[in-house]
Amino acid sequence: MKREPIIYLDNNATTQVDPAVVEEMMPFLTEFYGNPSSAYSFGKIAEQALEKSRERVAMLLGCEPREIIFTSCGTESNNAAITSALSLDPDRQHIITTRVEHSAITKHCEALAKRGIEVTWLGVDERGQLDLHELERAIRPDTAIVSTMWANNETGVLFPIEEIAAIVHKKKAIFHTDAVQAVGKIPINLASAHSHINFLSVSGHKLHCPKGVGVLYVNRRTRFNPYLIGGGQEHGKRAGTENVASIVGFGKACKLAGENMEHENSFVRGLRDDFENRVLETIADAQVNGDREHRLPNTTSIAFDGIESEAVLMLLDKAHICCSAGSACTTGSIHPSHVLKAMGFSTERARGSLRFSFSRFNTMTDVEKALHVLPQIIAKLRQMMAVA
Amino acid sequence: MKREPIIYLDNNATTQVDPAVVEEMMPFLTEFYGNPSSAYSFGKIAEQALEKSRERVAMLLGCEPREIIFTSCGTESNNAAITSALSLDPDRQHIITTRVEHSAITKHCEALAKRGIEVTWLGVDERGQLDLHELERAIRPDTAIVSTMWANNETGVLFPIEEIAAIVHKKKAIFHTDAVQAVGKIPINLASAHSHINFLSVSGHKLHCPKGVGVLYVNRRTRFNPYLIGGGQEHGKRAGTENVASIVGFGKACKLAGENMEHENSFVRGLRDDFENRVLETIADAQVNGDREHRLPNTTSIAFDGIESEAVLMLLDKAHICCSAGSACTTGSIHPSHVLKAMGFSTERARGSLRFSFSRFNTMTDVEKALHVLPQIIAKLRQMMAVA
Repeated sequence: MKREPIIYLDNNATTQVDPAVVEEMMPFLTEFYGNPSSAYSFGKIAEQALEKSRERVAMLLGCEPREIIFTSCGTESNNAAITSALSLDPDRQHIITTRVEHSAITKHCEALAKRGIEVTWLGVDERGQLDLHELERAIRPDTAIVSTMWANNETGVLFPIEEIAAIVHKKKAIFHTDAVQAVGKIPINLASAHSHINFLSVSGHKLHCPKGVGVLYVNRRTRFNPYLIGGGQEHGKRAGTENVASIVGFGKACKLAGENMEHENSFVRGLRDDFENRVLETIADAQVNGDREHRLPNTTSIAFDGIESEAVLMLLDKAHICCSAGSACTTGSIHPSHVLKAMGFSTERARGSLRFSFSRFNTMTDVEKALHVLPQIIAKLRQMMAVA
Repeated sequence: MKREPIIYLDNNATTQVDPAVVEEMMPFLTEFYGNPSSAYSFGKIAEQALEKSRERVAMLLGCEPREIIFTSCGTESNNAAITSALSLDPDRQHIITTRVEHSAITKHCEALAKRGIEVTWLGVDERGQLDLHELERAIRPDTAIVSTMWANNETGVLFPIEEIAAIVHKKKAIFHTDAVQAVGKIPINLASAHSHINFLSVSGHKLHCPKGVGVLYVNRRTRFNPYLIGGGQEHGKRAGTENVASIVGFGKACKLAGENMEHENSFVRGLRDDFENRVLETIADAQVNGDREHRLPNTTSIAFDGIESEAVLMLLDKAHICCSAGSACTTGSIHPSHVLKAMGFSTERARGSLRFSFSRFNTMTDVEKALHVLPQIIAKLRQMMAVA
């Protein structure tokens, strides 16, 4: 398997594993293979590595290590949070979420709705923002949980999570945020006196750790019933033998994310802004989707009039440039982005939009190469459309 | 972190990762980090690797690749099978299982029982075997699923799984087997005309793959509702970005297990038998627990009169010898083994029992060293007990 050097501008889909993360994992893929639940010293080596990793994740999130549960992915974290909230009180079986969530929330809520759980879907405005008064009014005495993402995977738009959490807290419901796109990209401090977040989901592979590991933050004062049931792993909160090597990698990835946060918030933002500005300058009839102020530093979603994003993606792929039309998890879907549709955009605009997402592994050369190719592709496709 | 060379006789808790497995994984921890759901070529490399791995797992199990769902662990596979079976028909909410299952089944069934699901617990005889007539009589028109393990993790005792599956099939219920300890150790052929297994659980780390990956076999004619809900991964049967590197490793581990099966069935059995026979010869008042005929080739559970296994384990640990008193997943529990208790043994016998489990990475030297140390420890502890 050989490949041309690729220009990876799809870091919201997944990220390159940091070589330092792999290095940290290797001893646990080779020498230290003990089961952390085993009583002997060889098992304790693995157990101690888990706890060190838990501390590192807690440090990045500004919480206590005991509030961290390692899971297999963001989806499991999301499913677990909502399922636990619904399990606590048979008289609280109402969920509130938004129309712009990731499928790990939307599909789960749709499945729950089929089983008789009532779900309120909050809309967003053209910037991709919620109406917080509408949110507040939607919370009822039987609301079990409110779940809204922190940062949108398609547009990068940031919800005012602490404000939302405070509203939910005041109305005495549980608040969960899918922070899969936010963690490692923006500062998060769950120990803050203003924080009223009960559950928060993280995915390792969005922050330069391998796929197959996630975290659910469970506030220490929030009741929680496990989603995976069996052995007493994760202090009784998630059964199943721990993915030791990947968890160790996750800890390292969080340490690096903390250390690189400032760098990312300037270097990566610089790359994104430079790319975005020059696209808007060089390509006519292109517009950024969503709130440009309250947004992740690494993401831009751009609508190009009169083209089909699928065709652009195919031509970019030939030039070894990776980006996407929406979430990787819903790729193959023939539907236009549910996020852009929820923002009130036409099917045409949704179908003509591309997402570019950067990371600390990108370079100015990546930006230059993409800026070299993209305008030609857009022009060519528009010409073809005009002729057709 | 340095360690003395260890003698690892606890291969039912977890196993050394085969270096060839790590080697196969490495490209997916480094260069090929694409998301298998991404539409571009770089994502397809990961997707193709998943499908190759699916074929390799299917080859080991003798089934079709489309019948393989990758999960995060054996526990998830077990939870998913039972949950799916219960989701199909509100009038079928009865479960049958046994008293000697792993906690991933027992604790889940206990949790379901608290929610009003009726559970029938089948006992075993002194050999650790079920009464198949009792099993047949227990199946009712409202039985959703029968779940019995293939090989017991503590004693290695094998249930006659195809016979059990045929009985369950005849009575029109779904049959699941937790085959976590069986796969890779004994031949399995799910495509056989005699196979009536609907669901089968596998765990990667029991067969020389890293922790954090499992499989649920779902017979292609069996209805299945996903346990993790979100994106369309695993052909819509398990949401969550795939643990690509570990899945690739799992495929390699299955390939090696298939190739080494004969070797294991002779070499590993030879080690186990030699160890077991010499323990019985050199240590008085020692007895093997369970059916010695229908048993995994790698496991022996031995009861030593008049000692506490915890004390033996501590002294063995000082000699860098790893074995266990029961399942690693219930370590820390003050209760004596529920498996040995179910077989009718006294609390004293259960408390005085040790499990030794071998793999192809063990050597005759391991056996010699363990046989050098163990009799001294048992003698010393018995002497202390006599004095006390």
